[in-house]
Amino acid sequence: MSTPLKVAVAGLGNVGVGVVKILEQHKELIKERAGREIQIAAVSARSKTQDRGIDLSPYAWVDNAADMADIDDVDIVIELIGGEDGIAYTLSQNTLKNVKSLVTANKAMVAHHGAVLADLAQNNGVALRYEAAVAGGIPIIKAIGEGLAANELTQVYGIMNGTTNYMLTHMESRGLSYDEILDEVTELGYLEADPALDLDGIDAAHKLAILSSVAFGTKTDFKNVYIEGIRKIAGIDIDNAKEFGFRIKLLGMTKYENGTLSQRVHPVMIDRNLPIASVMDGFNALVVDGDYIDRTFYQGRGAGEGPTASAVVADLIDIARGHTGAAFYKPASTLVDAEPVSINQRKGEYYIRILANDETGVMADITSALKASGVSIDQMKQKPAEVQGKVYVAIATHETTETALRDAINRINELSVVLEPTMSIRIEKL
Amino acid sequence: MSTPLKVAVAGLGNVGVGVVKILEQHKELIKERAGREIQIAAVSARSKTQDRGIDLSPYAWVDNAADMADIDDVDIVIELIGGEDGIAYTLSQNTLKNVKSLVTANKAMVAHHGAVLADLAQNNGVALRYEAAVAGGIPIIKAIGEGLAANELTQVYGIMNGTTNYMLTHMESRGLSYDEILDEVTELGYLEADPALDLDGIDAAHKLAILSSVAFGTKTDFKNVYIEGIRKIAGIDIDNAKEFGFRIKLLGMTKYENGTLSQRVHPVMIDRNLPIASVMDGFNALVVDGDYIDRTFYQGRGAGEGPTASAVVADLIDIARGHTGAAFYKPASTLVDAEPVSINQRKGEYYIRILANDETGVMADITSALKASGVSIDQMKQKPAEVQGKVYVAIATHETTETALRDAINRINELSVVLEPTMSIRIEKL
Repeated sequence: MSTPLKVAVAGLGNVGVGVVKILEQHKELIKERAGREIQIAAVSARSKTQDRGIDLSPYAWVDNAADMADIDDVDIVIELIGGEDGIAYTLSQNTLKNVKSLVTANKAMVAHHGAVLADLAQNNGVALRYEAAVAGGIPIIKAIGEGLAANELTQVYGIMNGTTNYMLTHMESRGLSYDEILDEVTELGYLEADPALDLDGIDAAHKLAILSSVAFGTKTDFKNVYIEGIRKIAGIDIDNAKEFGFRIKLLGMTKYENGTLSQRVHPVMIDRNLPIASVMDGFNALVVDGDYIDRTFYQGRGAGEGPTASAVVADLIDIARGHTGAAFYKPASTLVDAEPVSINQRKGEYYIRILANDETGVMADITSALKASGVSIDQMKQKPAEVQGKVYVAIATHETTETALRDAINRINELSVVLEPTMSIRIEKL
Repeated sequence: MSTPLKVAVAGLGNVGVGVVKILEQHKELIKERAGREIQIAAVSARSKTQDRGIDLSPYAWVDNAADMADIDDVDIVIELIGGEDGIAYTLSQNTLKNVKSLVTANKAMVAHHGAVLADLAQNNGVALRYEAAVAGGIPIIKAIGEGLAANELTQVYGIMNGTTNYMLTHMESRGLSYDEILDEVTELGYLEADPALDLDGIDAAHKLAILSSVAFGTKTDFKNVYIEGIRKIAGIDIDNAKEFGFRIKLLGMTKYENGTLSQRVHPVMIDRNLPIASVMDGFNALVVDGDYIDRTFYQGRGAGEGPTASAVVADLIDIARGHTGAAFYKPASTLVDAEPVSINQRKGEYYIRILANDETGVMADITSALKASGVSIDQMKQKPAEVQGKVYVAIATHETTETALRDAINRINELSVVLEPTMSIRIEKL
C-alpha cells in the first residue's frame, strides 16, 4: 500500500464538515477503494471556536487559509471557501503553482476562471477537480467527461438549482404565491447568502458554464450565458402552464454547433410528461445528448452536506487512484473560444401573460398587436384578475422569433388597456 | 503525444461494428480526449465475407478470435463474442494472462466469472473493463465505482432489460396481450437469440450480479440471484395494477446488509408515481442509494449499436488515460463472499390473481384460505373473466411474509372452485 494522501480542508461550512465526516467514518472503505489512505493534514476556517459538531483537535489548524498552499506535506488542497475571486482564487492558484492538486466545490470560481486554472494545473502536472461544483449528488462531470467520452455531445440541459426548483414545485403543489414560497425558503435556510444567486439564475449559470466546457471542450465563458431568474413567475403562470399542458421549470441549457455556443438559463414551459418535468423539490436533474448514446438522464440531490461532500471525496479518491488528467478532459491549450449565440437568435414558441382592463375590444387590440409583429396564436385564455374590472390574458404562440416576440410585447405594452409590462416565458420542445 | 493504443476487436455484430464506426468517425476527438490515438490493429468474426456496411480492409483479419490474445502489438482485446464460457472466456483469460487489457460487453461471462477475471487482471497488472455489459447507454459502472465511491451503498435497483420493458409498456399503453406483444418484439428483432434470456429475467440477472460486485465489493454470485421472468403476466394483471395504483415492471434489486446479499429479479408492482415507473419502451434506468448521496437516478438506452459501442469506447479511452485500476474498484483479493438472502425471507405486500368459478361462496372460500395463512387483505376486486361463468379475483395484501403468502396460495389452489394455479406479483415500496 502506498503512502497516505494528505489533504488540507479550507472552509468548514456544511460541505467542509461533511468531508471531514466522510473521511473519518469511511476511512477503511476509502483506503481499500482508493488504494491509499486519505488523511486530513490541516483544516482552516474563519472561526476556530465555532461548534461544528465534529472534533477538529486531531488536525493542524491554519488561521489563514491562503497559507495552505504552502504546507509541505499536503498533496491536495480542498477549497470550500467560495466566491469567484478573493482568498478562494488566490489559494487555488497558489496551490496549483506549488504543485499540489486542487479539489473545489466553487462553481463561481470555476465558471469565471476555469480555463486559467486548468492551464495552471496542466503546467504544474497536478489535478484540478470540481465534481462538487455542479449538482453535488450527481456525478455528472465524470459521466460527461469520461462515461460519454466516445460521443460528440450535442446538448446538455437540466435543473441546476435546487432552491428555485423547490419554490416552483410548491407554488404548483400547494398553490402558494411567489412571496409565500420565498418566505418559506428563507425560513428554511435554503437560499444562498446572496439570494440573487438562486433567484436570478446566477448559480445555475455558473454550473452551466462549467458543463459547457466539460461537454464541448470550450473555454468557460460565463459572461455570455443569457440569464433570467424566476422572480417574475406568479401563481397565475403556474396555473396557465398547467392548463396549456406545460410545467414551468428553471432550466440551464447549453448547445454547441459548428463552433457556436448557446448558453441560456431562464424559466421555461415544457411538456408535463417529460422526465425532467417530474423532478420535484430540491432535486437536480440533467439530460445529456450525444451522437452514439442518444439521450441520458441523471437525477440526484443538488446540494446539502452529504451529497456535495460525497462529490468532493470522490474527487480525492480519483486522485488517489492516479486519475490526474486534464481538468476539462482535454489539454487546456486546446480549449476552444466558441462564438456565443445571442438569445436574439432564438426561434420557438412563447407564453405571454398580459394584465388588461376588462373592456370591449381588448382581445382585438392584443391580437392585432401580435398580428402586426407576425406572431400567431396557438392557445389563448382570458380570466378575471384578482382585482375587479381587470383580466389576465394568457397566450401560447406558434413558433416565432425572439425579436418578433419582443416587438409584439412592445406593441402590447403600448396599448392603453394594458396595465403592466407583459411577461413572457419561452416554451421549449426538448 | 504517446504511442497509439492498439486494439483488437473480437466479434463484429452490431456492437463490434459500432465500435469500429466510433473509432473511425471520432478518431481526432478521441485522440485529443484520450491523449493517445486509439488504433484498430485487428478484427475477427465468424464470417469474413458478410456485408456489415463498413470497410474492414484496413484491418488485419484474424480467422480464429482466440488467436487475438497472442498478437504482439495489441494492447487491448475487445471481447464482443458473447456467451459465458466457450471461446469468449478462453480468449478473455488468455488476453489477461498475456498482459493485455480486456474490454468486454459480455454480461453472462462477467456475471459468472467476474471474480476469476478480476484476479487474473490484477495479477497481470492489466485492466478488465465491462461498462458495456450493464445498461449500455448509462455509464453506471463508472458512476457507482468512481462517482459514488465515497459512500457506503445500501441498494441498487432498476430496469435492466429493455425488451421486457418495451413489452410491459405496450401491454399497458396499447392493451396488447402477452402473446401479441411477444409476436411484435420477435418481429422487430428485439429478443436475444435465446429469448429465455429476456423473458425469464436471466439477462437482467446477469447485470444485477455485476452491479452487486461493483456496489458492495462482493464476489459476483450469479447462482444466488432469485429470478422470475414476465411470462406469467397477462393483460388482466396490467389492468389490475393500474386500478390498485401500481404499474408492473421487471426489476433487478440488490441489497447488502451486515454481510448478507439479497439479489432478486422478478416482476413487481410499484407506485405509478415513482420516477422508475415512468421509464418506458426500451430504456433502462437505475436507482443507487448511498449513505451520503441519498438517492441517485440514471436513465438511458439499454442496448443497441450506438449506446453499447459508446460504453466500449469509453472504457478504451479510460485505459488510454491510464485508468487501469481494479476491475471491481478494490483489490480482487478483498472481494467478499456474501451470505445469500433467500427469497423466502422476504416480507412485504403481494398481489394475487385467481381464476375461479362464479359460484356462491367463492369469495368466502378465498378469504378464509387467506385468513388461515395469516394473510390480510388491503384491496380486493372481482371481475368477470373472458369465459362465461368464471371470474377473476384480484387481491392486494397487507404486509406479510413470502412463506405465509405461498401457504395461502397453496390453500387457494386446493379449493374446488379455483380453476388454474394462482399467480402472484410482489408489491415493492421503493
